[in-house]
Amino acid sequence: MTAMNKENRRVCFVINSRANYARIKSVLIEMQKRSDCELQIVVGASGLLFRFGNVVDIIKRDGFTVDREVYSVVEGNEPIVMAKTTGLAIIELSQVFSDLKPDIVVTVADRHETIATAIAASYMNIMVAHTQGGEITGSIDESVRHACTKLSHLHFPATQGAYENIIQMGEEKKRVHITGCPSLDFIDENRSKDLNNILEKYLVNPKGIQNLDFLLVLFHADTQHYIEVSQATREILKAVKETNLPTIWLWPNVDAGTDYISKELRKFRDSNPSSKIQFVRNFSPEEYVTVLNHTKCIIGNSSSGIRESSRTGTPSITIGSRQSGREMAENVICLNKADSLIIRDKIIEQVNHGKYDQSNLYGDGNAGKKIAEILCTTQISIDKKFIPLR
Amino acid sequence: MTAMNKENRRVCFVINSRANYARIKSVLIEMQKRSDCELQIVVGASGLLFRFGNVVDIIKRDGFTVDREVYSVVEGNEPIVMAKTTGLAIIELSQVFSDLKPDIVVTVADRHETIATAIAASYMNIMVAHTQGGEITGSIDESVRHACTKLSHLHFPATQGAYENIIQMGEEKKRVHITGCPSLDFIDENRSKDLNNILEKYLVNPKGIQNLDFLLVLFHADTQHYIEVSQATREILKAVKETNLPTIWLWPNVDAGTDYISKELRKFRDSNPSSKIQFVRNFSPEEYVTVLNHTKCIIGNSSSGIRESSRTGTPSITIGSRQSGREMAENVICLNKADSLIIRDKIIEQVNHGKYDQSNLYGDGNAGKKIAEILCTTQISIDKKFIPLR
Amino acid sequence: MTAMNKENRRVCFVINSRANYARIKSVLIEMQKRSDCELQIVVGASGLLFRFGNVVDIIKRDGFTVDREVYSVVEGNEPIVMAKTTGLAIIELSQVFSDLKPDIVVTVADRHETIATAIAASYMNIMVAHTQGGEITGSIDESVRHACTKLSHLHFPATQGAYENIIQMGEEKKRVHITGCPSLDFIDENRSKDLNNILEKYLVNPKGIQNLDFLLVLFHADTQHYIEVSQATREILKAVKETNLPTIWLWPNVDAGTDYISKELRKFRDSNPSSKIQFVRNFSPEEYVTVLNHTKCIIGNSSSGIRESSRTGTPSITIGSRQSGREMAENVICLNKADSLIIRDKIIEQVNHGKYDQSNLYGDGNAGKKIAEILCTTQISIDKKFIPLR
Amino acid sequence: MTAMNKENRRVCFVINSRANYARIKSVLIEMQKRSDCELQIVVGASGLLFRFGNVVDIIKRDGFTVDREVYSVVEGNEPIVMAKTTGLAIIELSQVFSDLKPDIVVTVADRHETIATAIAASYMNIMVAHTQGGEITGSIDESVRHACTKLSHLHFPATQGAYENIIQMGEEKKRVHITGCPSLDFIDENRSKDLNNILEKYLVNPKGIQNLDFLLVLFHADTQHYIEVSQATREILKAVKETNLPTIWLWPNVDAGTDYISKELRKFRDSNPSSKIQFVRNFSPEEYVTVLNHTKCIIGNSSSGIRESSRTGTPSITIGSRQSGREMAENVICLNKADSLIIRDKIIEQVNHGKYDQSNLYGDGNAGKKIAEILCTTQISIDKKFIPLR
Repeated sequence: MTAMNKENRRVCFVINSRANYARIKSVLIEMQKRSDCELQIVVGASGLLFRFGNVVDIIKRDGFTVDREVYSVVEGNEPIVMAKTTGLAIIELSQVFSDLKPDIVVTVADRHETIATAIAASYMNIMVAHTQGGEITGSIDESVRHACTKLSHLHFPATQGAYENIIQMGEEKKRVHITGCPSLDFIDENRSKDLNNILEKYLVNPKGIQNLDFLLVLFHADTQHYIEVSQATREILKAVKETNLPTIWLWPNVDAGTDYISKELRKFRDSNPSSKIQFVRNFSPEEYVTVLNHTKCIIGNSSSGIRESSRTGTPSITIGSRQSGREMAENVICLNKADSLIIRDKIIEQVNHGKYDQSNLYGDGNAGKKIAEILCTTQISIDKKFIPLR
Repeated sequence: MTAMNKENRRVCFVINSRANYARIKSVLIEMQKRSDCELQIVVGASGLLFRFGNVVDIIKRDGFTVDREVYSVVEGNEPIVMAKTTGLAIIELSQVFSDLKPDIVVTVADRHETIATAIAASYMNIMVAHTQGGEITGSIDESVRHACTKLSHLHFPATQGAYENIIQMGEEKKRVHITGCPSLDFIDENRSKDLNNILEKYLVNPKGIQNLDFLLVLFHADTQHYIEVSQATREILKAVKETNLPTIWLWPNVDAGTDYISKELRKFRDSNPSSKIQFVRNFSPEEYVTVLNHTKCIIGNSSSGIRESSRTGTPSITIGSRQSGREMAENVICLNKADSLIIRDKIIEQVNHGKYDQSNLYGDGNAGKKIAEILCTTQISIDKKFIPLR
Repeated sequence: MTAMNKENRRVCFVINSRANYARIKSVLIEMQKRSDCELQIVVGASGLLFRFGNVVDIIKRDGFTVDREVYSVVEGNEPIVMAKTTGLAIIELSQVFSDLKPDIVVTVADRHETIATAIAASYMNIMVAHTQGGEITGSIDESVRHACTKLSHLHFPATQGAYENIIQMGEEKKRVHITGCPSLDFIDENRSKDLNNILEKYLVNPKGIQNLDFLLVLFHADTQHYIEVSQATREILKAVKETNLPTIWLWPNVDAGTDYISKELRKFRDSNPSSKIQFVRNFSPEEYVTVLNHTKCIIGNSSSGIRESSRTGTPSITIGSRQSGREMAENVICLNKADSLIIRDKIIEQVNHGKYDQSNLYGDGNAGKKIAEILCTTQISIDKKFIPLR
Repeated sequence: MTAMNKENRRVCFVINSRANYARIKSVLIEMQKRSDCELQIVVGASGLLFRFGNVVDIIKRDGFTVDREVYSVVEGNEPIVMAKTTGLAIIELSQVFSDLKPDIVVTVADRHETIATAIAASYMNIMVAHTQGGEITGSIDESVRHACTKLSHLHFPATQGAYENIIQMGEEKKRVHITGCPSLDFIDENRSKDLNNILEKYLVNPKGIQNLDFLLVLFHADTQHYIEVSQATREILKAVKETNLPTIWLWPNVDAGTDYISKELRKFRDSNPSSKIQFVRNFSPEEYVTVLNHTKCIIGNSSSGIRESSRTGTPSITIGSRQSGREMAENVICLNKADSLIIRDKIIEQVNHGKYDQSNLYGDGNAGKKIAEILCTTQISIDKKFIPLR
């Protein structure tokens, strides 16, 4: 940590995963440019783990100083480890905040550990800012996201609908700012970048994708229905295989049920040595945008299949209940069940459709700048009160 | 724990303090009478501590079986220990739930540890029921209460206003039941019980109160303004002393800032050996009702000065922001600041006024029965979704 | 857990890894046969993890009842996670012991989490029994093992030398019993079992090993020199490859530095698709004995390359400081440094030498029976005192 | 924390209680004088608690910078909280060490949390120095002390006997240095200081002691026999009362069973309002020496009744098994049982005897200087190995 400047506001970002980083990076860039605040970065949870792409190294390579690294992932394949991870993260983060003494702590989106940041900071009378609140989805993320809203003092929803939901939950209007999602800020400058370099950096067999039509799959465990994921993974694998299209498949997040997915992926890999599916651990947020822009179709249940893809216009197929309820642009086809035949047909339909029109539903590309400005200038205040609408 | 009956629903109550117990005891009594469910009781946090009245012993003496005792209070006088206590409680409770395998977990009201119960259970895909949600107050309790609502699947608000706030926050109507507050269930049968026995059981000098007009003080730290409590405690002590009325003063809850209060109380006690103020650690919920009914005025910032006192009609003076926003009956005078002269005058005014009419604002005395019935018969379901009102 | 019988002694075993299980299983079998004690089994740490062979499932399949599963591994590749894992395990295990109320807790050997069991139990005034104490090795295990001895009340060293070291450390003679190591109890009945079935069960390509001379590698991170393991792993891979012998390579334990090893193994696998090395997650203890008996040479730094192999007479090459100081039979060649040329030459030397004479250094095959008898009949006593030898 | 100087060695002291501070303060003073090392101070456990004298404030008032404050005491009156406190402290301290990056961590003596420091540091490959190892006593402290020795790389025993015990346990001679106990370093300069100022600072009624013969009592819970402490406390109270001598009684340490003692003390105080016993929370280490030097007899089971009193020659009565086995000078009378009549008679005997000759058993007053010199100049090395004596 750089020496503390008494006059400067300290804003601390807690980044717990690769998805967190993608959704906050443009804010960090803007914060770093400013002279009126001190940027603090804490990396925790799966952000520190090799199995999930060592995001902490990417953050450092991007030129940021990481003030604290907080190991808090309790390993296991049952939902109980989400609870234990969150408990441990609260213990650790409260100690970190007592040392870094931030004026504002920023917590990102809705993974289960997110609430650890909000609890540790709010209980210690530190102002909490929350990004991507107010959205509606399935899974435990739905509850976590709204609970974080009620623990936070400053809100940066991505969409008009999310804004209205936050107000409905009783938050004061002056604390809620529609900014768009920072993950879209990179899209315009990165969508058309050279894909081949990226493929060579990450793929064992880049030639299997380069200059070809290819699919992109991100499929995570739904922690409330984690038992069913093995079956769903098999159906998606089968569907993708039957399209005979080369495919990039990103390893899932660390979550209850992840091992069920990993096991299926390994089994598939071992019994299909000549398959056209290549497994990748991680891209940087910018690289991911390029990949997303070039793929003919994104498949799975990642929010990027709704959010980022709305702006690249990438055809998308969202499977299961993990994203159910989320606002979507016209590029998304939703499937409630994972049936290989239907998935295969919808993939073909989407590949044939080609790119959709770009939508500004999740932001206009300036979220980072807007959020940084508010974080640096808003009044510090932790006294909040439920506002009845009636 | 009694042997698990496969056919019976298991409902687990987590009780973390004496206030928790008072607010759930009538539900436990009703649950114990029923043959269609298995009652599980976990006592944690300050419910296990001698300094806070050893509530666990009272629970056992009342005839309940305590299935698990979970030490989780991290000791200290700074807000950071609320965060650490909550983190530790999540770790512990998740292990307990994995062993007790409840179908429903009940979390009570809004103290900071309450959210540990809600997180551990909801993350483990166990249905969470929450009592006393939807109310509006000051302090971190305000945020914790609403965050618990968003993590819970079943709600038992005490008042119509609280019900409407929960609906506003996006909860499904079928999950929200106005039941009244169980803490009021004991009032009718206990209000007129013999006070003298209780005084003899708890007071060093019962004759200093018996058959006399007396005051009752409960003053807790407001964890968001915990630094100011020393001054406020001194003002209240001064005011009470100047009324020259005998007084029962209950030790404060364990909270950040509690030591500041305790220190003032000890200082006062040491330098006022002949004072008419007697300090008491704890009453049982029923005994408390009797004391509350007999006092000429309750002073401080306990919610019982608003909630239970509404039904006994006891004159009440509420000081500071800890309860600000809570629905009140006409028996309460609110003072924003703790000024000894004003407090003294208002005490005299309230003592002279005498009892107010009884109000049903916080319940009609049947909350325990209603809540138990719903817990035992509602459909088990953890799939919840935000309901937009527009 | 079965209902507690007041008259029966309760003995609780905490099993934290596949190695733990192999080293205590014959004791569990003997305990289960007895009617004078109640057997309790707690599985924790890597014993619950898929990545490390899901030992808990093997334990259940072997007919044991697992009373509690305790997730406590904090994931990461730095030594700090060993400390955090141990801290978390103490918190969890103390809660488990308060519920299971054992008379004796058994902790196995010397991995870093072992001390969590010893601390939780001894602090709670529960008698602690420790197996495989008194041995001398390198790595943090050396310190952990002796610290466990000083926290334990009953000792089951495997060798005469270990016995003498425990006495030297000031333990009372009546508390120390040379029993041999339980991991050797399976050797006689399993050494000659059919290997082919086992290979078919675990290997992708069993024919690559069946009826052929093959090598066996177990190489773990040395947590005090964990940075160097990448280099060492590469050297061993190179040496093994150059022998051109088919090889079974077991994935390493979960430890600081494990990721460095895994990364090298994956890299090797990806760039040597036609390699004769096959990677396996886990064998059962008995299956392992059969594999160990059939291999031409065991290579790496697992204690089984010294302990179990002494009784099968399997030629062994031990590399680095992790086992330095351990008592060895004549079958072991020690190499301080990992140099591929030297390793290769020593492998060829050992393969040419063939089986060594069987040694009883680490036990005569009756450790399980002896330990069970003492656990069930020894006097319960936690008052211990350092015995000066001068 | 001051900015880290790359060339300077960093030595980190973890102070967990008032007793810890008294036993390390003279080392801190010497460290602070030196320019060849950077002093780091972490205060944890009861060192942060108001109930135990707020040692952290005394440390700051003494001119030291406290780098980190780590709340880790899990509150409760059962032995389980010692285990949980230790587990939590390991989690917290490992995070602190990863941030402060010390070259050596110093852990003091033998309270249960002491081992948390040793585990966190040694697992993280940081050199651990341990003071007051090798002594023999009763209670769990006996096991903790020796386990810490086996986890440490540098030892500062106070006595020749302790030195020999450490060597016996297999430590290398070059790592063990007889330095005496730092708590004795203050004795010569403070023994004759003015007592009356100190009494006025801490006592409600200083005149009750000033210029009179008085007794000093320190009685802590023995965590292995914590149930019996109520009875023992009553016997000591009775004995002291019957001598009719004015008495200073220090509140006990935070430990399992402390509440039993506190309860008896409060009961006594309430029912003996005119008693000559005055209760005090804390003295500074130097003030304590003055009090100890002036008292006619120290009674209880504190190690200061053996250690510091050996050098002041203060008559001492040690009760119970907590100190049994410790090396003693001729000033100590040991009583196995707490019987009020015997205690009273022995008090009278000791008061009549008056001062004993001063002993150097626990040090010559230069421990601080010796320890600081070794800490700043010894070679950093974590590779340790058991040294067999045969």
